[in-house]
Amino acid sequence: MSKTRDEAGWRAHLAALVARDGLCGALGIELIAGGRGWAEIAMPIEARHLNFHGGCHGGAIFALADTAFGLAANSHGPVAVGIDAHITYQVGAEAGDRLVARATELSRGRRLAVYRVDVARGGADGGEQLVSTFTGTVYLR
Amino acid sequence: MSKTRDEAGWRAHLAALVARDGLCGALGIELIAGGRGWAEIAMPIEARHLNFHGGCHGGAIFALADTAFGLAANSHGPVAVGIDAHITYQVGAEAGDRLVARATELSRGRRLAVYRVDVARGGADGGEQLVSTFTGTVYLR
Amino acid sequence: MSKTRDEAGWRAHLAALVARDGLCGALGIELIAGGRGWAEIAMPIEARHLNFHGGCHGGAIFALADTAFGLAANSHGPVAVGIDAHITYQVGAEAGDRLVARATELSRGRRLAVYRVDVARGGADGGEQLVSTFTGTVYLR
Amino acid sequence: MSKTRDEAGWRAHLAALVARDGLCGALGIELIAGGRGWAEIAMPIEARHLNFHGGCHGGAIFALADTAFGLAANSHGPVAVGIDAHITYQVGAEAGDRLVARATELSRGRRLAVYRVDVARGGADGGEQLVSTFTGTVYLR
Repeated sequence: MSKTRDEAGWRAHLAALVARDGLCGALGIELIAGGRGWAEIAMPIEARHLNFHGGCHGGAIFALADTAFGLAANSHGPVAVGIDAHITYQVGAEAGDRLVARATELSRGRRLAVYRVDVARGGADGGEQLVSTFTGTVYLR
Repeated sequence: MSKTRDEAGWRAHLAALVARDGLCGALGIELIAGGRGWAEIAMPIEARHLNFHGGCHGGAIFALADTAFGLAANSHGPVAVGIDAHITYQVGAEAGDRLVARATELSRGRRLAVYRVDVARGGADGGEQLVSTFTGTVYLR
Repeated sequence: MSKTRDEAGWRAHLAALVARDGLCGALGIELIAGGRGWAEIAMPIEARHLNFHGGCHGGAIFALADTAFGLAANSHGPVAVGIDAHITYQVGAEAGDRLVARATELSRGRRLAVYRVDVARGGADGGEQLVSTFTGTVYLR
Repeated sequence: MSKTRDEAGWRAHLAALVARDGLCGALGIELIAGGRGWAEIAMPIEARHLNFHGGCHGGAIFALADTAFGLAANSHGPVAVGIDAHITYQVGAEAGDRLVARATELSRGRRLAVYRVDVARGGADGGEQLVSTFTGTVYLR
C-alpha cells in the first residue's frame, strides 16, 4: 500500500470499500473522510433503523460504529478481523437525526490492534451530543 | 401484562414487536420462539449482511443478538432500554448461512437487568457452531 | 503437556500456578478444582477487598474472575495472554461472603480463545446468587 | 457537596476515600489528583501485582482502572455503583513499572453515568505508553 496517498486518495480508497459493503448499502452508511488508522462516516436515521419502541435501534448504532472500526482497522492494507467489541448507549437517537461515527487507532501491534469509536448526533443548532462510545479489537491476518 | 399467556400467546406478542421493528425488516430477522425473559430469532445471511471482505458483517451479527436481547428484556412489559453491550466474534459466517440467536435472562432487578445471547450457525449436517457470545444490560424505566 | 493427567494431577498443576501468583497471595485466592479449559477458585471477602463505601470492591471481584480465566486459558500449556475482558455486576458482595468463580472455555482456535466466568456468592442456606458474569479473550503465543 | 472546593480541597476529599479503601491499601494505590468527574491515581508494580507468568496481573491493572472510575463517579457526592466495565490490554507491565490511571466523565444523567479510564506506563525516558483502556458505567442511587 502506497504511503504517499493524499487526502483525496484515502477518500477514494475507503469510499470503494463502503461501496462494496452490503450492510452499508442496506443501512445507508456514507463515508465522510478517512486515512491511515482512522475513518469518519455518517448514517441518516430513517424508518429502517428504528426498533419496536420507535427509537433508533441499538443494533443500527452499533453497525455504524463497527463499520467505522472496520474501515480504520483495514485502512493499512492487511486484513483485520474483529474479535470483540463493547458499546455504551448514552442518549437515544430518532428518525431525522444524522449520526456520525469517528474511529481512531489506540494501538497497533503485529497481530492485534485496538480502536475507539465515538458516535455523535448532530443538533439543529450545529452542536453535537455523544450517543455512544465503542471500543473494538482486531486480529491481523 | 397477563401472566397466563401460553406458548402461542407469547409467540404472537413477540412476533408483533418484530413486525413493527424497522431494523428487523431491513435485515430479514424472524422470530422463532420466546417467552418471559427469553427469545430466539433467526437471520438468513444474504448480500445485504456482508462486509467489504465478502463475509458476514460484525454489525449484522450484533444487530441480530441485540434484537434477541431487546425482545427478552421487553417481554415483561416495562420499557427496557439498552445501556451497554459486549460481543465476541469466534468464527465467521457467510452468505447462505442461517444464524440463530438465543437470549436468556441472567438477572433482573427493579431498575437493571442483564441478558446473555449466544449466536450460532447451523451446519448442513444439523450441527451448530458458536459464532458470537453477547452480554447486555438494560435500564428499566 | 500430558493428556493423561488425572483429577489430582490437574489440581496439583493449577495449585502450583496459584501458589506462584503474587496477586492470588495478596488477595487470598484459593484453587478449588480445574482441568483442561476450566478452573474453579474462591476468595473469602475480608477488609482488604472492600471499597470506600464498605462493600466488596469491583476490582477485587474482577481480579477473582480474571484469575479463573487465566488458569483456564493457560491450562492447555501454551502461554495465553489476556487481550480484553468485560464484566457485569449484578449484586454486591460483603465482608464475610465467600465468592466462587468458575471459568469455562467457549471456543479455542490456533491464536485466540474465549472464556466465560460466572462469579457467585454462597448463601448461609447453601444457595448461590450470581454476582458477576465475565467474558474474556486471550491471544495464544 | 460544596461547589466551591478548590484543587487542594478536591485532593483532600479524594485522598480520604482512597485512605479508607481496603483494596487501595492491599495494592498500594495512591491518589495523584482529582476533581468533579475525574481522578488520576498511580500504582507502582511490585511482587504482589504479578501473575503466574511473572508479568503484571490483568486483575491488578483492572483494579487500578476501576478505582479511578469509582473515584471519578463518586466525586459528585451521590453513591455511584458500577454496573459493567470493559477493558483492553495493549501492552504488558512489569515489576518496577509505575502505572498511572486517568478517569474522565463521558456522560452523566440522572441515573446513569459513563467514564473512560486510560492506564499508562511511565518510561525511564519520561515518555508514556498506553497499557489499557477501560470503559465503565455506574448507576446513581
